[in-house]
Amino acid sequence: MDLKDILDAKLKIIDDALEQYLPKEKNCQDIIFESMRYSVFAGGKRLRPILMLAACEFADGKIEDVLPFCCAIEMIHTYSLIHDDLPAMDNDDFRRGKLTNHKVYGEGIAILAGDGLLNYAYELMLKAILQNPVNWERKVAAMYEIASASGIYGMIGGQVIDLLSENKQIDGETLDFIHLHKTAALIIASIRAGAMIGGADETMMACLTEYGKNVGLGFQITDDILDIVGNEEKLGKKVGSDIENQKATYPSIHGMEKSVQKVQELFHKSVSAMEQYHEKAEFFIRLADYLVKRDY
Amino acid sequence: MDLKDILDAKLKIIDDALEQYLPKEKNCQDIIFESMRYSVFAGGKRLRPILMLAACEFADGKIEDVLPFCCAIEMIHTYSLIHDDLPAMDNDDFRRGKLTNHKVYGEGIAILAGDGLLNYAYELMLKAILQNPVNWERKVAAMYEIASASGIYGMIGGQVIDLLSENKQIDGETLDFIHLHKTAALIIASIRAGAMIGGADETMMACLTEYGKNVGLGFQITDDILDIVGNEEKLGKKVGSDIENQKATYPSIHGMEKSVQKVQELFHKSVSAMEQYHEKAEFFIRLADYLVKRDY
Repeated sequence: MDLKDILDAKLKIIDDALEQYLPKEKNCQDIIFESMRYSVFAGGKRLRPILMLAACEFADGKIEDVLPFCCAIEMIHTYSLIHDDLPAMDNDDFRRGKLTNHKVYGEGIAILAGDGLLNYAYELMLKAILQNPVNWERKVAAMYEIASASGIYGMIGGQVIDLLSENKQIDGETLDFIHLHKTAALIIASIRAGAMIGGADETMMACLTEYGKNVGLGFQITDDILDIVGNEEKLGKKVGSDIENQKATYPSIHGMEKSVQKVQELFHKSVSAMEQYHEKAEFFIRLADYLVKRDY
Repeated sequence: MDLKDILDAKLKIIDDALEQYLPKEKNCQDIIFESMRYSVFAGGKRLRPILMLAACEFADGKIEDVLPFCCAIEMIHTYSLIHDDLPAMDNDDFRRGKLTNHKVYGEGIAILAGDGLLNYAYELMLKAILQNPVNWERKVAAMYEIASASGIYGMIGGQVIDLLSENKQIDGETLDFIHLHKTAALIIASIRAGAMIGGADETMMACLTEYGKNVGLGFQITDDILDIVGNEEKLGKKVGSDIENQKATYPSIHGMEKSVQKVQELFHKSVSAMEQYHEKAEFFIRLADYLVKRDY
C-alpha cells in the first residue's frame, strides 16, 4: 500500500472524529465555534494525531481509546498556530493559503478561539476518561505527557524564546532550543501519548521516544530547508518567508550543506531506533523518510 | 472568629501553595514565569480557591487533596483576566491599581502568559492525580467540572458575548447570560469541584450548587452596583468605569432599586440552600453576606 494512501486513510479517521467532536450547534456564542472550526479545518496534515494513532496501534491499542486524544492534540496544535499568527506575535495574514483566524474574525475572537481550543482539548480528554475509565492511569499519564509538552517547559517555552529572538542574531544552541520546544516537543508527546494509551512496554516506549526526537527535529530542519529551496506548488505555500522575516533557521546558521547532512543523520537515527521491530515498524520508517526527506 | 480572619487564614494557605507551585527558576524562558507570577500575585482576593477549599472541608475532605485544584482555578481565573485586559479585548491599562500584564511585558508575552497559566493549571491537576491517585475518579470529575466551566460553554462563552456586546444596547437576558457564564460559572465550579474532591453526597452537592448559583450571580450584580455607588478607598479601585466604558450592567438595565432587591433575593436564596446544615454552614452564610452585601 502506498504511504500516501495510508496517511489519507488515517487523516480521514482524524477528520471525521474532529468533525464529530467540535461543536457546531447554533446558539448565541456560535461565532466562537465557527472560528475554532475555521482554523481546525484549514487544511492541516494532521501529522501529530496520525503519529499518535499509529503509535497506539503499534502498541496494539484500540483506535476508539486514542481518538479523543488525537483530536485534542490537533486542537492544541491549532490553538498555537492561531495565537502565533496574531499581530502581537508573528503578525501573519495568511496560513496555508487562507486568511489567518484574526484576519477573518478579528483579534478578540481569535484570542478566544485559541483559548477555546486549548481548553476544549482538555474537556475532550477528561470526558473520554470519565466515559471509558478502562486503563484510566494510562490515559491520565498520556494527558500529562501532552500537557507538559504543550506548556511553559515545552511548546509555550519555545514560543517565548522565538518571540524574544525576533530580529536578533541567535546562536545554534538557541535555535535548537526553539526547534526542540516549539515543534519537536509536541511531536514526541504525540507518539508517547499514543504508545501509553496503547499500553506499550518500556522498551517500545524508549524506542518510540528516540524515534520521535529524531523525526521531530528532522521535520523542523527540513521545513527550514524547504523554505529556501522548496517548490512552492508542491508545498502549497510561499517559500523564502524566513529570509524575508529575517528569521534564524538551521541553514542560515549552519549553512545548507550541514543542514542536509544533519537531516540525513536524524533520519538514520530514527530508523535505527525502530530497527528491532523489523517489518512491524514499516509505517514509521516510511513516514520518517517522507517527513525528513520531503521534496527538495 | 471574625470572618476577615478566617478568610485571611485561607488566603494564606492558597498563597503559600501558589508560591510553591508556580515555577520561578532561572532559565532562558524565565520571563514567562515572571509574567505569570506578576499577575497571579497582583493582589487577588482568592475567592474561587477559598470557596473550593471551604467546600472540600465542608464535605470532610483533606486540604492537601484539594490544594493543587485550588491553585489551578486561581491560575485559570488569572489567565482570563490577562487576556480580557488585552488591547483587542477590554484594553485596560490598570487592574487592582497595578499595570496590566501587557503594559509591563508587552502583548506577545501577555498572550503567552495567559496561555501558560491555563495550560499549567491542567499540568498541575494531572500531576496531583498521578502522584496521589486515591479517589482518582472524584479528582478527574472535579477537573472536568473546572474545565467545562472555563470553556466555550462557560467562561469563554460569556466572554464572547461580552466582546460582541461592546458599545451595543443589550437586553436583560443577554446580560444574565454574560454574568452567569463569565463570572458565576467558575464560582459554581469552584464550589462543586471542592465538594467532589471532599466526597460530598448528592444532597450536599445539590445544596452547594444552589448556593453557588445564587452567590455567583449576587456577587456579580453587587460588583455592578459598587461600580456606581461604591467607596473608591474601600474598594481599592476606581468607580464609574462601567458607565465610562458604556458597559451594560444590572443597574443600567433594571435600575438601582431593582438591582438591590435582586441582590437581597439572591442572598436569601443562598442562605436557604444551606439551611439544613445549620451551624455547620456558618462560614458559607457569612461569606454570602459578605460577598453580596459588601459596603455600598
